[in-house]
Amino acid sequence: MRGEIISVGTELLLGQILNTNAKYLSEKLALLGIDIYFHTNVGDNEERLKECLNIAFNRSDLIITTGGLGPTVDDITKETVASFLGLPLVENIEAKEEIIRFFEKIGQTPTMNNFKQAFFPEGAKILPNKNGTAPGCIIEKDNKIIIILPGPPSELIPMFEESVYPYLKSKTNETIKSRVIKIFGLGESKVEEMVKPLLFNSNPTVAPLVGDGYVTLRITAKGHDDKEILEMIEDMESRIRGIIGDYIYAVDEEEMEEVVIKLLQKNKLTLAVSESCTGGLLAKKITDVSGASKVFNLGVVSYSNEAKENILGVRKSTLESYGAVSHETAKEMAENIRKLANADFGLSTTGIAGPTGGTPEKPVGLVYVGFATNEKVYVKKLMLSGDRSKIRTRTVLHALDIVRRYLLGIKID
Amino acid sequence: MRGEIISVGTELLLGQILNTNAKYLSEKLALLGIDIYFHTNVGDNEERLKECLNIAFNRSDLIITTGGLGPTVDDITKETVASFLGLPLVENIEAKEEIIRFFEKIGQTPTMNNFKQAFFPEGAKILPNKNGTAPGCIIEKDNKIIIILPGPPSELIPMFEESVYPYLKSKTNETIKSRVIKIFGLGESKVEEMVKPLLFNSNPTVAPLVGDGYVTLRITAKGHDDKEILEMIEDMESRIRGIIGDYIYAVDEEEMEEVVIKLLQKNKLTLAVSESCTGGLLAKKITDVSGASKVFNLGVVSYSNEAKENILGVRKSTLESYGAVSHETAKEMAENIRKLANADFGLSTTGIAGPTGGTPEKPVGLVYVGFATNEKVYVKKLMLSGDRSKIRTRTVLHALDIVRRYLLGIKID
Repeated sequence: MRGEIISVGTELLLGQILNTNAKYLSEKLALLGIDIYFHTNVGDNEERLKECLNIAFNRSDLIITTGGLGPTVDDITKETVASFLGLPLVENIEAKEEIIRFFEKIGQTPTMNNFKQAFFPEGAKILPNKNGTAPGCIIEKDNKIIIILPGPPSELIPMFEESVYPYLKSKTNETIKSRVIKIFGLGESKVEEMVKPLLFNSNPTVAPLVGDGYVTLRITAKGHDDKEILEMIEDMESRIRGIIGDYIYAVDEEEMEEVVIKLLQKNKLTLAVSESCTGGLLAKKITDVSGASKVFNLGVVSYSNEAKENILGVRKSTLESYGAVSHETAKEMAENIRKLANADFGLSTTGIAGPTGGTPEKPVGLVYVGFATNEKVYVKKLMLSGDRSKIRTRTVLHALDIVRRYLLGIKID
Repeated sequence: MRGEIISVGTELLLGQILNTNAKYLSEKLALLGIDIYFHTNVGDNEERLKECLNIAFNRSDLIITTGGLGPTVDDITKETVASFLGLPLVENIEAKEEIIRFFEKIGQTPTMNNFKQAFFPEGAKILPNKNGTAPGCIIEKDNKIIIILPGPPSELIPMFEESVYPYLKSKTNETIKSRVIKIFGLGESKVEEMVKPLLFNSNPTVAPLVGDGYVTLRITAKGHDDKEILEMIEDMESRIRGIIGDYIYAVDEEEMEEVVIKLLQKNKLTLAVSESCTGGLLAKKITDVSGASKVFNLGVVSYSNEAKENILGVRKSTLESYGAVSHETAKEMAENIRKLANADFGLSTTGIAGPTGGTPEKPVGLVYVGFATNEKVYVKKLMLSGDRSKIRTRTVLHALDIVRRYLLGIKID
């Protein structure tokens, strides 16, 4: 099947936002064996959108549009597709009731504009939107498929996964499956060097990709039989595991924080954190995981020496003789938060995230991570590169990886 | 001038990379008053690239291509443009010498492939590449302009700034400027209703755009004189401010947390936060801002009742009779973190971010935000929609907005 993506929104053409939807959809469609030959961005303009629809309709079997489903006058995607296909817009009662329910829930009253979102081209299959007021829809006409999706990724992604993927899966017979192996603690070129022979494999293929602070290997297998494809992937995964070993921390969508929380839950252990340079990001990552409350009870962001002293009980002498960014402070922060929270483990971060605050002795990027158990305290010194946000993100990955390694009985290097 | 951008690269269609070049170029071209009506991504395929060139050549005055200038066989942009325009490729001596110099500099010897990069469509103006081996070029034909640029942003951006921008500036005498007005506390359709007459204004134009938990209005003005354009924008901004008023919290790139931190710094006041449902996100947002340490000293993520009791000193009786998600708990959390941190203000969040943990009385999305000053404690009850991440993000915006309103002497509704 030949497909293309049309993203509607003047903000794209003004360079105000990046088109992450086209990237996301292309990745997913590739896994369905659908060839995407074109991406087009067009503004909120009926004439030009019609021109794009006309071009796409003549060369592709599948057209996916994103954006332009909002309640405002410049949201015209559904209206334009309907008029392009010569279909009337008809009101959908469930969609209308959904909108009413949505506004009841948030304690507001919908305006007339909002009800515009309950109208769809005649015969369209409605795609519910659990995260917004704009449902999507699927229209089949002249052996072509047009799928209309909302613009906000937080609405488009769940809608694609719940409704569009199963629909398209039923339309294609070749399957491509892929699995992403996530690696922490080895650089991209190091990983490439280690698995080099595998990178020339044709089916499944293995492709390296660098993430923010971690490295991934994507295994992609093609075939007609799901079981067979899965075996190919698993065989390749075990070959990769044989080479990369403990540096592999997760697979596919799973994040480091989820891995750590699962391990804590499995072992019925609790964690508390005290943060300086990460300023809440470590706690935030942990609590991104629903159910974290079972294993995480306390986080303290001690952003001043007073807070380190008064709340965490870091010794004045330690702060005076070694400074807030030091092995000793990280150690006491980890030990003390563990006691304070009466938790099994204490995890701490202290460092210089920049852009200011660096000195020749303690440059931007110098970070100490502390991890306290009931027996001992580990302190890891890091020299991280990148901007403030990168340094904070990488610090959090290092901190969580120490917990992962400890719980799996892997040497903490 | 009507322009469009064609980005060449199969990796774009496979969703392996984001097209940041189209965003960058669009932003710059908008400021030159060039109307960009389309972005197209196409693979490294001669036939389909020709199809795109043909469509673009018939509807636009300016075509900018990015990518496909590398030394390998699948880099075909220059060759395809030349054959589309019926122009022979001719070798450029300076470009050839540049390539030789470049390889000398990095201590390598060029392969035959590399010299492919010294050939250009006849009559093309060469654009030197200081950061790579692929020069770009400009071709003028039939009153149309085609500009061919390399794919890597590290090569494209300097080339655009040094060569393309001055060239285009000389071709256009119009300028466009735009300003984004950020609004919190009003829904998109509500805002649109309020400013409806302005949305039909032609110059400057006003367009609504919904962000994650906030709404923006983008003012865009065209003209020949920068001063005059600025006045048009400022006049429109003051008209919008006259309608939307205090709900406007920032302009352009500025974020809510930056606004709040600036206000605290200006007034030499300090803030401490105690978080439950936001789990560190509030502290994280505050400490995203470099220099936050001057006004933010302590954050506590009390993710269990014990932590609320033992660390924050929330009364056992309060937790027992009203529960952790309640007006009373939010109030005590805000009061107590203020005292604990010896700060001017205490800000607290407690709620049900979901997906689990909701009950009929306390559904997912129910959130209380507390704000304590030396005189009084404000508690705001919220009923938020969306997934866990949205609910957390919106809670943080509401919390920070209360501080903003207080410091600006605006009624906290």
